[in-house]
Amino acid sequence: MSTSATFDPLEFRKALGTFATGVTIITTRADDGTPLGLTVNSFNSVSLDPPLVLWSLANSALSFDAFRKAGHWAVHVLAADQEELSARFARRGEDKFGGLDLEQGIGGVPLLKGCAARFQCRTASQYQGGDHLIFIGEVLAFDRDETAPLVFHGGRYAHATRRDPAGIKPRSAYLAGSFGEDFLGYLLGRSHFRFFAQIRPYLAEAGLSDEEFYVLASLTLKPQMSAEDLAIGMQGVLDEQSQAAVQALVDRGLARIVTPAPSTAGTAYELSDDGRNLALRLIAQAKSVESQVLERLGHADAVVIKSLLNRLLAVIDPQAAVLWGEPPR
Amino acid sequence: MSTSATFDPLEFRKALGTFATGVTIITTRADDGTPLGLTVNSFNSVSLDPPLVLWSLANSALSFDAFRKAGHWAVHVLAADQEELSARFARRGEDKFGGLDLEQGIGGVPLLKGCAARFQCRTASQYQGGDHLIFIGEVLAFDRDETAPLVFHGGRYAHATRRDPAGIKPRSAYLAGSFGEDFLGYLLGRSHFRFFAQIRPYLAEAGLSDEEFYVLASLTLKPQMSAEDLAIGMQGVLDEQSQAAVQALVDRGLARIVTPAPSTAGTAYELSDDGRNLALRLIAQAKSVESQVLERLGHADAVVIKSLLNRLLAVIDPQAAVLWGEPPR
Repeated sequence: MSTSATFDPLEFRKALGTFATGVTIITTRADDGTPLGLTVNSFNSVSLDPPLVLWSLANSALSFDAFRKAGHWAVHVLAADQEELSARFARRGEDKFGGLDLEQGIGGVPLLKGCAARFQCRTASQYQGGDHLIFIGEVLAFDRDETAPLVFHGGRYAHATRRDPAGIKPRSAYLAGSFGEDFLGYLLGRSHFRFFAQIRPYLAEAGLSDEEFYVLASLTLKPQMSAEDLAIGMQGVLDEQSQAAVQALVDRGLARIVTPAPSTAGTAYELSDDGRNLALRLIAQAKSVESQVLERLGHADAVVIKSLLNRLLAVIDPQAAVLWGEPPR
Repeated sequence: MSTSATFDPLEFRKALGTFATGVTIITTRADDGTPLGLTVNSFNSVSLDPPLVLWSLANSALSFDAFRKAGHWAVHVLAADQEELSARFARRGEDKFGGLDLEQGIGGVPLLKGCAARFQCRTASQYQGGDHLIFIGEVLAFDRDETAPLVFHGGRYAHATRRDPAGIKPRSAYLAGSFGEDFLGYLLGRSHFRFFAQIRPYLAEAGLSDEEFYVLASLTLKPQMSAEDLAIGMQGVLDEQSQAAVQALVDRGLARIVTPAPSTAGTAYELSDDGRNLALRLIAQAKSVESQVLERLGHADAVVIKSLLNRLLAVIDPQAAVLWGEPPR
């Protein structure tokens, strides 16, 4: 427990940062017509009747005087895809509005587009709060869009993912908790199998096994891939099956063995034109399956599941870096 | 755009709900010694020097008078696993503190345990804000724990998941964006293969193929499983390989064919004692691998990745319900 006797400002910031918030940009127009805006996460609702919201601004902010004098301002609750906008309005001084498609709001306040919600406010009160001024605004108009929010937590941007309703626990198994919806291996296996079941008809049409498709697609990652890199990249994935798969591709004229350049040791593989065309066609078909699945899952969850699977691979998959041509993580 | 002329309170609430927040419980002690507390998400930081925070309370709240008169109160920022506590303190009237392990804070304020952060405050100011009163507190002491936060967004609880740093895009592939870290099929396939590569040594020791283990473990889900249910449950997963796998288990005495009961049609399978023991041992070993992987991934991400894979399966996997003995979702 830190007390006033031992009050470390950095620790205090960290403690405040445990409270997650959305991210807003607050805009106004200065007396001389200049549009002003800054990124703020101290926003919150106050009252429903009358409709009031609040936020606070550091006394030291460059735009402090302009906001203090402003009769109107607008709060923009940012969407998940507006992180760059958030960063732009968090920087000092820059021409923040350059190139943005603006609307004109009540009192001439510049309004940004593509936000999760916007509140157009009239300054109702201002209260001193230490090194900040608290702005209370009466909401005169608002709009809202169905979109995932940008979130800030622990000093970093975050995603918000809908929680499973409390009480809906994983369905119980006969042998309690043993194998099923709470076991990552089951979830990964079943998701992989079921996802590929939707792609397999296209592979069957092209006469490719799962393994042959996996190797074919992996060969698209580099102009040429040495046999050694392929073997390392497939370690723990297809293992010795990868050799049979690449040989099958060579036999069908989809890939070929490259004569080693003097500077490299050992054999390398590259796709033939036929192989590259087939790979691109199958990948396009697989991408189309993916689009349909992700649309049903929802955009917000789709972004997060990919991000988390990449993070999982960073934990369990040092070999991927070989395929991707980067030093091991 | 809703304007004051067309101000729908429900729509206004929804617009406010686009701003994600953490969840806090604020506690105090009434004049007569009664501990009081309520769930609040209108908390925010105000000032670093002096250290000030704020929150607002509806004039209509049962504990309004007690909080208005209180010289001290404490803000508890809730952790991801405190959703039940949040719900308890959001209900009216109940004995909210019953059975809780409390500490005594400054001014006799009851302090809850297990939170992401706690701020012990002295009432610094109170401001009217429409139908709410805004409390400004000077922070006298605080503490913090490294834990995932409880988040509220769009009227529901949510998880916050750290975002990938902007600018770190998926590593580019030779054939741009074709097959790789942004393709769900690749991520699922590679995660599955790599995860199982860590379990495979245990399977090899037991002389089981991947498919045989998958069927063996699936048979633990029910006391008996009809051949038809097994076939439907394995559709798009192992397909015809499941028949060979279950036969191999029967041949080894790990599973047996059950004489059909008069009420059921067709063959059913059940595990033998040997089969059940082997399944439990392998599942325990697999769980131990899982624990190590999830520990490296981090608890917060682990919870979310499982939740999202379950949601993905709900989209692509109607057959799972057959194995789980529930009606299709």
